[in-house]
Amino acid sequence: MQGTVEDVDVPSASDVLRRCRELVRPALVDAVGRLHPWTGEMAAYSLGWSDTAGTPEPGGSEGKGVRQALALLGAEAVGADAACAVPGAVAVELVHTFSLLHDDVMDADTLRRRRPAVWKAYGTGPAVLAGDALLARAVTGLAETPGHHAAAVRRLCDALNDLVAGQAEDLRFEHRPWDGPGAVGPEEYRSMAEGKTGALLGCALALGAVLGGAPEPTVAALDRAGRHLGLAFQAVDDILGIWGDPATTGKPVHADLHRGKKTHPVLAALAGGSRAARELGTLLASARPTDAAAAERVASLVEEAGGRAATRGEARRHLDAARDALRATPLTRTAARELDVLFAGLADRVM
Amino acid sequence: MQGTVEDVDVPSASDVLRRCRELVRPALVDAVGRLHPWTGEMAAYSLGWSDTAGTPEPGGSEGKGVRQALALLGAEAVGADAACAVPGAVAVELVHTFSLLHDDVMDADTLRRRRPAVWKAYGTGPAVLAGDALLARAVTGLAETPGHHAAAVRRLCDALNDLVAGQAEDLRFEHRPWDGPGAVGPEEYRSMAEGKTGALLGCALALGAVLGGAPEPTVAALDRAGRHLGLAFQAVDDILGIWGDPATTGKPVHADLHRGKKTHPVLAALAGGSRAARELGTLLASARPTDAAAAERVASLVEEAGGRAATRGEARRHLDAARDALRATPLTRTAARELDVLFAGLADRVM
Repeated sequence: MQGTVEDVDVPSASDVLRRCRELVRPALVDAVGRLHPWTGEMAAYSLGWSDTAGTPEPGGSEGKGVRQALALLGAEAVGADAACAVPGAVAVELVHTFSLLHDDVMDADTLRRRRPAVWKAYGTGPAVLAGDALLARAVTGLAETPGHHAAAVRRLCDALNDLVAGQAEDLRFEHRPWDGPGAVGPEEYRSMAEGKTGALLGCALALGAVLGGAPEPTVAALDRAGRHLGLAFQAVDDILGIWGDPATTGKPVHADLHRGKKTHPVLAALAGGSRAARELGTLLASARPTDAAAAERVASLVEEAGGRAATRGEARRHLDAARDALRATPLTRTAARELDVLFAGLADRVM
Repeated sequence: MQGTVEDVDVPSASDVLRRCRELVRPALVDAVGRLHPWTGEMAAYSLGWSDTAGTPEPGGSEGKGVRQALALLGAEAVGADAACAVPGAVAVELVHTFSLLHDDVMDADTLRRRRPAVWKAYGTGPAVLAGDALLARAVTGLAETPGHHAAAVRRLCDALNDLVAGQAEDLRFEHRPWDGPGAVGPEEYRSMAEGKTGALLGCALALGAVLGGAPEPTVAALDRAGRHLGLAFQAVDDILGIWGDPATTGKPVHADLHRGKKTHPVLAALAGGSRAARELGTLLASARPTDAAAAERVASLVEEAGGRAATRGEARRHLDAARDALRATPLTRTAARELDVLFAGLADRVM
């Protein structure tokens, strides 16, 4: 039946995500169960499965599982059964969890999905250890997968290196001036965001295709689509980091402004050259907006100088590029439509 | 000529280590050069190649490179050329460096090889990031090695999981009582030490053998030898952590006592049941020895209760077991003798 009647039986993005989470869940539970019990407890907390006492908290703070869904859809899109991509889905989900744990330590972010970050709940050392355990387990699971493991492990490793380099760039950007010769240029921002966010989304799709036995050009196209999706995703995240509702984002209001992060809306606003851009430049050069009123003023100026609109445009362009990459690739119809729904749903958060 | 004249042309342990460092150095420099420049700088500092300004510091604070040497000797011992094991040597050396970086964060150790630990010199977040970068690069390098990469990657992954689990145990032990039903038993201590120290030494030897094309029983025997060597090594380290000269160890005096670490000498002393053991138990139960006089008193009681001698015996037993594992395996004569010299040299530090 599927794919024979236009626009009828296409599930919603949340249906797609739920189906994929259910398919991956047993293997993800098994992987976490192989960790040392203490790091396993922190992993379960981080995944939103339990509270700090280890008591199950079903569903409450669980992530959407975008990366695991991309891995399964990557396999289905090349005509394979989703089951063959489960080890890839587990690996990218564990790597994502590792990166959240360590990034929260590095960024001193105290909240994650409306709960204390792992380092706040368990301490910095334990959070570092739990991240290490998740990373080791992610690579191990994939290395133990029979079949196409060599290419899959290399894909995961490449994404890991990109992810860490992107995080390094992001941290270094905080020490750079807002404008002048040392300012962060658009290409540098893009490279950071592609590493930090795009690499793992691209890897998720590519791993699904690799495990599904797809030829290299198809794998590369899916990787490209995922990287563009990641850039759209990061643009959306940057908008939410300034104007997002804490009740939805689970993070403090204006968090990125208080930390002086070099996000796309601010960089785009400063590049505008309008009166608001100049005032914004002066304000940011004088001091980091540490109180609510100062952050509010910065947010207004960024909007007035066109930063929010420019970032929305950036998100749309990369979303279009991601969809174009999918359309230019021979993929099975149902999975391609589900990917399209998923891609649109992710960018929809601010459009 | 080699191997024909008994006890003549056997090099010293430091000769063996130097030869291996020289063979591995170009590939290790290349691997560090592939990191993001900032994480690469931290890695070079951590490896003792440069100071915090990035200025070369040749030789001063460099590690002995035991793990890289074991990898090369593992290949030579199975009749292969050391060159084939270089990717394995680089991988274990990078994993070791990763673990030092993260362990120093978790243990709040401020000194490493007489210099500030990376987290002290660069900050906690950057040290976590540099460790992640080293770990990702270690696995990547091995995954990209042509030939036997699948088995090699799996070996490295297994060691990584053991290493992280061992570190988890070690941290958890700090919250356990010194005696009574919740005390750390000898088997638990051994399992922790084997994970924390033995797994990577075993992996180094095993990787050399795998990359050298050895059959599985030989690989397993070398892994076993390395694990016993690790247990001997950890026992020696525990002795040095209490009685070692800070000028030699590069760490503060009585460091392990101040931190309340559950080390072998203290556990063995407490298990003795003598008057000194009972006094030691009472002392440790009342408070952690935070000042120099209290730590000195604890160290004396540990010695009096037989803890130092018991740990020296433990080191000797595991060193013998390591050598037995080597002798029971068909290995090339020159490499087997060099391994024997190296093994003895490592335990010699306190014997």
